[in-house]
Amino acid sequence: MQNLKAVLFDTFGSVVDWRSSLIAELTEFGATRGLTVDWTAFADAWRGAYKPSMDRVRTGQQPWTVLDDLHRSSLETLVTQFAIPGLSEADLDHITRVWHRLHPWPDTVAGLTRLKQRFIIGPLSNGNIALLVNLAKFAGLPWDVVFGSETFHHFKPDPEVYLGACALLRLQPGQVMLAAAHNYDLAAARALGLRTGFFARPTEYGPHQTHDTTALSDWDIVATDIGDLASQLGA
Amino acid sequence: MQNLKAVLFDTFGSVVDWRSSLIAELTEFGATRGLTVDWTAFADAWRGAYKPSMDRVRTGQQPWTVLDDLHRSSLETLVTQFAIPGLSEADLDHITRVWHRLHPWPDTVAGLTRLKQRFIIGPLSNGNIALLVNLAKFAGLPWDVVFGSETFHHFKPDPEVYLGACALLRLQPGQVMLAAAHNYDLAAARALGLRTGFFARPTEYGPHQTHDTTALSDWDIVATDIGDLASQLGA
Repeated sequence: MQNLKAVLFDTFGSVVDWRSSLIAELTEFGATRGLTVDWTAFADAWRGAYKPSMDRVRTGQQPWTVLDDLHRSSLETLVTQFAIPGLSEADLDHITRVWHRLHPWPDTVAGLTRLKQRFIIGPLSNGNIALLVNLAKFAGLPWDVVFGSETFHHFKPDPEVYLGACALLRLQPGQVMLAAAHNYDLAAARALGLRTGFFARPTEYGPHQTHDTTALSDWDIVATDIGDLASQLGA
Repeated sequence: MQNLKAVLFDTFGSVVDWRSSLIAELTEFGATRGLTVDWTAFADAWRGAYKPSMDRVRTGQQPWTVLDDLHRSSLETLVTQFAIPGLSEADLDHITRVWHRLHPWPDTVAGLTRLKQRFIIGPLSNGNIALLVNLAKFAGLPWDVVFGSETFHHFKPDPEVYLGACALLRLQPGQVMLAAAHNYDLAAARALGLRTGFFARPTEYGPHQTHDTTALSDWDIVATDIGDLASQLGA
């Protein structure tokens, strides 16, 4: 681990709390419009559409599409399913961009700030660049560089994302760590030679979450949160 | 200018003082090795090789090559021309990476920090990503995002660089400003609809510099330095 130069982070769920942020902003939006919608179910359904929508691109059923546009497309489906009336194009744009306004977990900003003193830090996310840049501005994420699926025209867990980031940094995979709250993401990174750091976000999917509550492998670092990750990496 | 969302910076010469930094570090390196070389002439010759080397790529005479590798190739030529003896591969790597260790101009970091409060800021440079990220860490440049020629596989002033950055940010060209000390760069940006901000770096090329000492067009902003640019943009 002495050669570690960069720590790259999964972002949605690992760095920011998408679910609470979505529910809070959608609830507020609904209240101002007098809409009666189960926004918790809506938020979960929207996130539920995430992996299937990426998989359509990953398997070639759909040409390359950035996450903002996948979010917009699944939003339109959900607006019909939930029978939400009276939304304009501007409203749909505004709601799509809720994903640019997600709040960090309490330990995130302080932990990243410590890691930044010693390592190159950045997202390695399925988001597109504009989304990730706007999110970093909103949440105060002190990234050195922003890598998203759009950089590589591939979504995780395609190898092109992990190896592409290493190549752009001109680092060997062993000099780069993926840090994430998702075991599948770390497994993909490890298979390609990257270092791995896990910390659980046991309420990412709400109070009844059953997956990713613990490390499912002997990841290089298993931490309680990003602050603990920084401590274990000597930052 | 009310719609301005991002200010992107030419980097070498505009944000960092490549010439003084090169001369200082090369002089120190030469002293530790007992080498008698005119390092000022060497630094100027090295930068002199920059545009011709990029133009070989831009015109298709040479396949895509990142700036680190162009620097390395021209370094090898110059080591022969200046008859510098006894350099190992590790030495050549170390010297090539002097470009990762350039010092900012005195107003740079404070000016960027102010602009970052109000706008997305980043380099729009002919450097490659690793070079620009390492340089930002070294010089304390608080970028929100890092765009280099490598992002687009084109060097400035190719339109793909300017328009590619706007597309990744999902902004219209009129929402993005190129800020630079080089009139040619601003002319290319303006032709594509970007906003333009000029500030002179009259000693970038040393005490006898004759070009780019003043604005050669009515750029949207003509400032004395990055701090003045921030002031004129209300940041």
